[in-house]
Amino acid sequence: MRAVDIILKKRQGKELTEGEIDFLIQGYTKGDIPDYQMSAFAMAVFFQGMTSQETAYLTNSIINSGETIDLKGIEGIKVDKHSTGGVGDTTTLVLGPLVAACGAPVAKMSGRGLGHTGGTLDKLESIPGFRIDLTKEEFIEKVNKTKIAVMGQTAKLAPADGKLYSLRDVTATVDSIPLIASSIMSKKLAAGADGIVLDVKTGDGAFMKTLEGSFALAQEMVNIGEHLGRETVAFITDMNQPLGNAIGNSLEVIEAIETLKGKGPQDLLDLCIELATQMLLIAKVCKNELEAKELLNEVIANGKALEKFREFIISQDGDPRVIDDYTLLPLAKEQIEVKSTTSGYIGKIDAEGLGTLAMVLGAGRAKKEDKIDYGVGLVINKKVGDYVEQGEIIATMYVNDKEKGEKLVGEVLNKFTISQEKTQPIPLIYGIVTKDGIKKF
Amino acid sequence: MRAVDIILKKRQGKELTEGEIDFLIQGYTKGDIPDYQMSAFAMAVFFQGMTSQETAYLTNSIINSGETIDLKGIEGIKVDKHSTGGVGDTTTLVLGPLVAACGAPVAKMSGRGLGHTGGTLDKLESIPGFRIDLTKEEFIEKVNKTKIAVMGQTAKLAPADGKLYSLRDVTATVDSIPLIASSIMSKKLAAGADGIVLDVKTGDGAFMKTLEGSFALAQEMVNIGEHLGRETVAFITDMNQPLGNAIGNSLEVIEAIETLKGKGPQDLLDLCIELATQMLLIAKVCKNELEAKELLNEVIANGKALEKFREFIISQDGDPRVIDDYTLLPLAKEQIEVKSTTSGYIGKIDAEGLGTLAMVLGAGRAKKEDKIDYGVGLVINKKVGDYVEQGEIIATMYVNDKEKGEKLVGEVLNKFTISQEKTQPIPLIYGIVTKDGIKKF
Repeated sequence: MRAVDIILKKRQGKELTEGEIDFLIQGYTKGDIPDYQMSAFAMAVFFQGMTSQETAYLTNSIINSGETIDLKGIEGIKVDKHSTGGVGDTTTLVLGPLVAACGAPVAKMSGRGLGHTGGTLDKLESIPGFRIDLTKEEFIEKVNKTKIAVMGQTAKLAPADGKLYSLRDVTATVDSIPLIASSIMSKKLAAGADGIVLDVKTGDGAFMKTLEGSFALAQEMVNIGEHLGRETVAFITDMNQPLGNAIGNSLEVIEAIETLKGKGPQDLLDLCIELATQMLLIAKVCKNELEAKELLNEVIANGKALEKFREFIISQDGDPRVIDDYTLLPLAKEQIEVKSTTSGYIGKIDAEGLGTLAMVLGAGRAKKEDKIDYGVGLVINKKVGDYVEQGEIIATMYVNDKEKGEKLVGEVLNKFTISQEKTQPIPLIYGIVTKDGIKKF
Repeated sequence: MRAVDIILKKRQGKELTEGEIDFLIQGYTKGDIPDYQMSAFAMAVFFQGMTSQETAYLTNSIINSGETIDLKGIEGIKVDKHSTGGVGDTTTLVLGPLVAACGAPVAKMSGRGLGHTGGTLDKLESIPGFRIDLTKEEFIEKVNKTKIAVMGQTAKLAPADGKLYSLRDVTATVDSIPLIASSIMSKKLAAGADGIVLDVKTGDGAFMKTLEGSFALAQEMVNIGEHLGRETVAFITDMNQPLGNAIGNSLEVIEAIETLKGKGPQDLLDLCIELATQMLLIAKVCKNELEAKELLNEVIANGKALEKFREFIISQDGDPRVIDDYTLLPLAKEQIEVKSTTSGYIGKIDAEGLGTLAMVLGAGRAKKEDKIDYGVGLVINKKVGDYVEQGEIIATMYVNDKEKGEKLVGEVLNKFTISQEKTQPIPLIYGIVTKDGIKKF
């Protein structure tokens, strides 16, 4: 078998065999197949696509390029959740304790990621003492005891994915649906999930800008799950404005705690309930959606979800007092109130722009080596469809460098488009894709 | 400027600027842009194509990646000829002396090439003593004195082309018309040609298998010439059977000499007259086709063309006696007559298959390092449309290893398809492309 013949076959739009795909991926991982063949292959895939069978083979081959985590030692059906990334996405911090409080095991491997704010690991590390460098044995033991644990993702999982992603990033081959789908699913499946609930973000602030592309990506990932025997459900949710109100690390931890207390932003709560419902169904903790929603609302109302977050923090050596005293979290020294200069209805919020501002303030990494400032960020007070008075606070910036912050006030204001005519709120969820098909909301 | 953005732009089907193309090519030549970006770019070009303006910019940029040859020291308009390669293509050896005998300067840089037989350089080197390692000064002096000289192509000409071609070869991006066209044209133009006559081979034994593809390639190369101010004319000619009768190095030298003596195969002579006619017109040696053809036939009939070949051999230190005594050329020890096992009309000849057999016998190189055996090869006695009797000699093999040769007799026979019904000869020329448009014959 020769790599050039496989590239040619794909270029001609023919379907590759499992053996051909595996030859490429394992050869590439070992370094026998050079970058320049893999990038030409990726570009051919961009143009010719892959069948869902090919995409499943590709995913499986990426999984087999490294270690896989065996979660058999954990009782129950392990359901993971993945979001394709957006601005102010605090769902994991809410969902984990929520689902665990209902009795489903949450065994989550997470990454740090680049972007507007830190990844889930960074957010958790803003809690003093919180430790994510668990051994595999500790991880399994903690899930069995507390029903929830989060650890850093090892580089040994799906190494082909990391290598391929870096290559795609510099060869204009990132936005290919089969390549994105196999990249996401391979990491989740290598991490041992029995089932997966996906949150595919769509809109200006998301990686996938169009509804069409988002549904296609969701469909492809559900197909992969189906081919590889792991139940997968995907939501397509809005990212035309930030989710919730907070953008930042400590700020999002506070927002998550507020949500678990029943006092969080409605959109964040609603989305968490929907995602959690599917997780409980796949985990076979509940029989139907109604039962799941009732249980989820109950564990928020009776404080069990919040209690689960406390146990989770204690289990991983964090300071649980942050739940009751937010001043124990690292928070920026200065707050700058951003006031609207006009009255009217919010027509648009540039989520990506706000995310970038948060990163500029220090909440996220532009490069892998960058250090995160846990305490900085933004909290917005208005969402699309809301009315704002001239002089009313539209957002609050949390900064450690007041001078730098004040220079950015105008930029923050610019991210809100204010209209004289009444505007409509944006839908939160556009649809759901399951193995039975697509349902648009 | 970043390479990844240029790749993306091409992937999206947008037209690149001269600056963007030059950034890629010069960066790649210097090693600033890695192979993996260039191969992704080449694959994007395969799918999205290039406008003729982009292709001209690309060609110019490849030319500027290295030295260019200044032929101003040679009097007259220098017209080069290039063939896209086929089996038994002896035209250069005939054309050079023929055109020079008419008074047009022939200053040819040539390569060795891989494939069925050697390149023009190898064929010339089968003449004892013939020297192709001329300095630039010698080269120019010889053309001014004898009207013809051939030297080896220096690696300093269009280095981006060599580097890019090697990469395309292993990334399934060879067969892209703008990339092929710019590759061919850049080498010819860097070598200083004022005008170019192209022989685009089409059919089973050619690189371009379809008439459509061959016309498209011809059109693209004529466009490049037009954009860069060098008059270019392209013929589309047949390669569904070998051109002439000989496949081999010494064997083709003999065939060329026979043709210059007026005793060569008709198809080879006819094609040489057509190509030479256009060369004389571009060189402004003749005013019209009729005048050119009369002159060409005259220099064959009066022996001036043959005499020019003799001067050419002497000028480059070869033994001119080979013209009168073919035994002075290296020829294989053994001849094996291949006799037809049935009677009938020749319906098809597998030119590529015969070429490969010649290579197996030692006439060509499979790898750059391979040594050529000048004396081996094949001579065929029948062309498509001819009648052959059972037991009649259909081809003769020239071999140094008789045992090996005899094992291949069946293979040679297999390359001829013999039909009981009368078959038609194949046309020699399908059309011509000039700056004024396409003319199909």
